[in-house]
Amino acid sequence: MRAVLQRVTGATVHVNGKLISRIGPGIVALIGIGTEDTQAEIAPLCTKILATKLWNENQLASHIAVPPQYAAEQQTPANGDAPTPAALAAAPGEGVKFDGDAAAAGEKSRSEEVWGGKPWKRNVMEIQGEILCISQFTLHARLTKGTKPDFHKSMGGAQAKELYDELLAKLRTQYVAERVKDGAFGEMMQCSLTNDGPVTILVDTDIKK
Amino acid sequence: MRAVLQRVTGATVHVNGKLISRIGPGIVALIGIGTEDTQAEIAPLCTKILATKLWNENQLASHIAVPPQYAAEQQTPANGDAPTPAALAAAPGEGVKFDGDAAAAGEKSRSEEVWGGKPWKRNVMEIQGEILCISQFTLHARLTKGTKPDFHKSMGGAQAKELYDELLAKLRTQYVAERVKDGAFGEMMQCSLTNDGPVTILVDTDIKK
Repeated sequence: MRAVLQRVTGATVHVNGKLISRIGPGIVALIGIGTEDTQAEIAPLCTKILATKLWNENQLASHIAVPPQYAAEQQTPANGDAPTPAALAAAPGEGVKFDGDAAAAGEKSRSEEVWGGKPWKRNVMEIQGEILCISQFTLHARLTKGTKPDFHKSMGGAQAKELYDELLAKLRTQYVAERVKDGAFGEMMQCSLTNDGPVTILVDTDIKK
Repeated sequence: MRAVLQRVTGATVHVNGKLISRIGPGIVALIGIGTEDTQAEIAPLCTKILATKLWNENQLASHIAVPPQYAAEQQTPANGDAPTPAALAAAPGEGVKFDGDAAAAGEKSRSEEVWGGKPWKRNVMEIQGEILCISQFTLHARLTKGTKPDFHKSMGGAQAKELYDELLAKLRTQYVAERVKDGAFGEMMQCSLTNDGPVTILVDTDIKK
């Protein structure tokens, strides 16, 4: 199984113009099931999604400003101290560097300035974030024969849906069911998100090292 | 070099709350440069981005509705026939299936209904779309030793920037310079996009088959 994990401040899924799913700060996980995948891949992938530390040591989902296009209509700020987008925009740090470069240079990173802690310290459960899983059969596309993607390594609909649903169920059991959302398997979706950093991590359960 | 290609209807990049880049329909390409990458990887990756057929045979960027959050303030509809989001929402096709499943079942896919052509037929140049490149050092993260991402396979700042800039220059030369946009290398960015499908393709120049 493959996954693309994106650290987001918010995300939505629409089908035929209708909102079907929404999350605040957390992970959008695009999930691709390959022809050789079995149930054995579910637990390892579940662990990668839940345990990988993508946030700073002091971050909490409730302290992260959700861009307005992902905010629920009835939502009110859960915390009066949460920074607004305007506050973030006005924060100091012009030309500050992202965590990777900053760490290499021994400098304080932008996220350290904003959140006051070291990066790569908390996973999605520790920040009490949400997870939006979206099935994405194109993750196993091969581009080696010409310019048309070849999907022969992607597992077909019904069989893939079974494994996908099991992954979702396991995520809900191991974390908090209400914080694990779903797209619409096999539908034509419009997936909107704001990647924070960006931070995008590729996971492939076939690769052990 | 690694890339995550996302087929989008629109995208923006903000740094410190300020808009620094914007595209309409096209590709958001997250680019990761590894410690072993050289100039030899630039041309093959450039070809994958420009030539991979992610759209239907009749699609054109000017016919694809851009979600309002990505539309330029001064932008007016370029084509009176372009479907609005409301029109798309009202279009027939409840519960229609996405291209992969539909093709397997011999059914007409949602995108065929909307665009009247077969999927995986046009590349970004053929639809006259835009490309937004965003440097993403986390694409080479390894998750094999515990839960903290290990970035030792990611090339460091200055050296990576050189290769990244060369890739961008080559894309601009081989396509149309004004249609190839950039994020802000090494900065803390907020990258917003709407993935259309979704369609997400993983490219790794190390993998030849």
